[in-house]
Amino acid sequence: MELQQQLAQWATRVERNLELYLIPESCIEPRLIDAMRYALLSGGKRIRPALVYMSCLLCGGTAEQADRAAAAIEAIHCYSLVHDDLPAMDDDELRRGHPTCHIAFDEATAILAGDALQCFAFELLSTAGGDIDPNRALQLIRILARASGSHGMVMGQAFDLAHVGDRLTLSQLQAMHAHKTGRLITASVMLGATAAGCQDSELLDALQRYGDAIGLAFQVQDDLLDIEGTTLTLGKPQGSDEAQNKPTYPALLGVDGARTKLNQLYEAALEALKPFGVAAAPLASLAHFIVTRDH
Amino acid sequence: MELQQQLAQWATRVERNLELYLIPESCIEPRLIDAMRYALLSGGKRIRPALVYMSCLLCGGTAEQADRAAAAIEAIHCYSLVHDDLPAMDDDELRRGHPTCHIAFDEATAILAGDALQCFAFELLSTAGGDIDPNRALQLIRILARASGSHGMVMGQAFDLAHVGDRLTLSQLQAMHAHKTGRLITASVMLGATAAGCQDSELLDALQRYGDAIGLAFQVQDDLLDIEGTTLTLGKPQGSDEAQNKPTYPALLGVDGARTKLNQLYEAALEALKPFGVAAAPLASLAHFIVTRDH
Repeated sequence: MELQQQLAQWATRVERNLELYLIPESCIEPRLIDAMRYALLSGGKRIRPALVYMSCLLCGGTAEQADRAAAAIEAIHCYSLVHDDLPAMDDDELRRGHPTCHIAFDEATAILAGDALQCFAFELLSTAGGDIDPNRALQLIRILARASGSHGMVMGQAFDLAHVGDRLTLSQLQAMHAHKTGRLITASVMLGATAAGCQDSELLDALQRYGDAIGLAFQVQDDLLDIEGTTLTLGKPQGSDEAQNKPTYPALLGVDGARTKLNQLYEAALEALKPFGVAAAPLASLAHFIVTRDH
Repeated sequence: MELQQQLAQWATRVERNLELYLIPESCIEPRLIDAMRYALLSGGKRIRPALVYMSCLLCGGTAEQADRAAAAIEAIHCYSLVHDDLPAMDDDELRRGHPTCHIAFDEATAILAGDALQCFAFELLSTAGGDIDPNRALQLIRILARASGSHGMVMGQAFDLAHVGDRLTLSQLQAMHAHKTGRLITASVMLGATAAGCQDSELLDALQRYGDAIGLAFQVQDDLLDIEGTTLTLGKPQGSDEAQNKPTYPALLGVDGARTKLNQLYEAALEALKPFGVAAAPLASLAHFIVTRDH
């Protein structure tokens, strides 16, 4: 199956599940649920859930075993976008061509919807029960928590905001992105492997290296797209990073240097997949997609 | 031991643990950790952790078994205060007599510190390991998640914000507080019982009734204090709820009616504790403290 079809299939699956899981029990303020739904279900590439599914299948697991982890990591990703877009943070009014959550609703609702989505992610993993071993469920929660809080994503965002307008070294830029976006992408791969029950430390290390490489590659390509893309394909004003004087790979390495870096990361990702042989073709295609995507 | 001594003992214990658990691994932006620490460790009555400990001991558990749940629920409570105080929410500049987090730091840092604290709570419970059975650890996470997200606290806050200035019915007011503050207080008691491994459904029901009663009582007394207290003892401007035209129990029932309600809830709490006999004395004292506290 072509990668695009696979991505579409996993996106459909995770969206259907998110709809199912988000049951508004005890709902005294429907607007909150509307805002959560808006944040969760207004598109996006759903790359993280796809990584969870692909990695789970690669390690011998089933799509069912990956369902909750895939939905949970997407909920964390979506909550982070809602909060990142807030006026006190990146102050973005458009996301994927649609009004951001605080524009479509209001700022307080966006803060609360983000808070509730984070909680929803952990609730999902805590109710895995039945088919999943409780130790494995706890490990999924631990992986997600360590990737998204003060050891990971939130720390990266805090560093980013504290350094708008600063000149960063390459290692600072890399540390920032490793936290801000990298940890969650690596976590996606690790969640899939863990949901499948993989305990082979060599394979887990290989998947970690793959995740780290594509996570960084994702950001390098994002920076390149911001320079080269158009508002239409990006869904956000082109050059918006540059306009805010944000540190980027092209700014530090030049456009050609950033392209070289991107290729090195792609090679590292493929190298990491070698132990899995041809079974890793979907993850290899996804790596290729990440470094060549135009939006 | 007097209740005040017990509360002080549990407060010291949970604060020491929070310090221990909050290890700034992978810290590239110390300001985020500083803001988390500020939000976690700037005082407060620590009633929720005390409830976790007392309920755990009452059910035959040890303080050690309750440690992580006590810290986790306090982290959730503290994150919610940080977000509630934000300009887009309640817009408060003082909390317990100190500048609120977004005043002491800045708005973006306060949003992120709150996000990271929520994550920290779930991370804590996911690393319970060793001494606690994994099924029990998962159940703790489920209790905490269901009490704090869109089924509980966040839903209550969303309802509250959506109805500032509205006239509410008594049942609306009650539903709001049951979500906004009640669920987390009941969860504290249930976390303690669960950490102790209690599976007796009659005792769990009784503890739930106790938690529901003191949770509501807490809010009724809060409303009464807002009318009768002074800025000095409350740490926030007296009459601030009234000034914002917020719905309160005294506004709906009159001051005397609110006092009667408070007494009924106190009686219900004591009634619920009867099956436990004299062993429940600490929880009974805590109920008494809640309905008589002056700050």
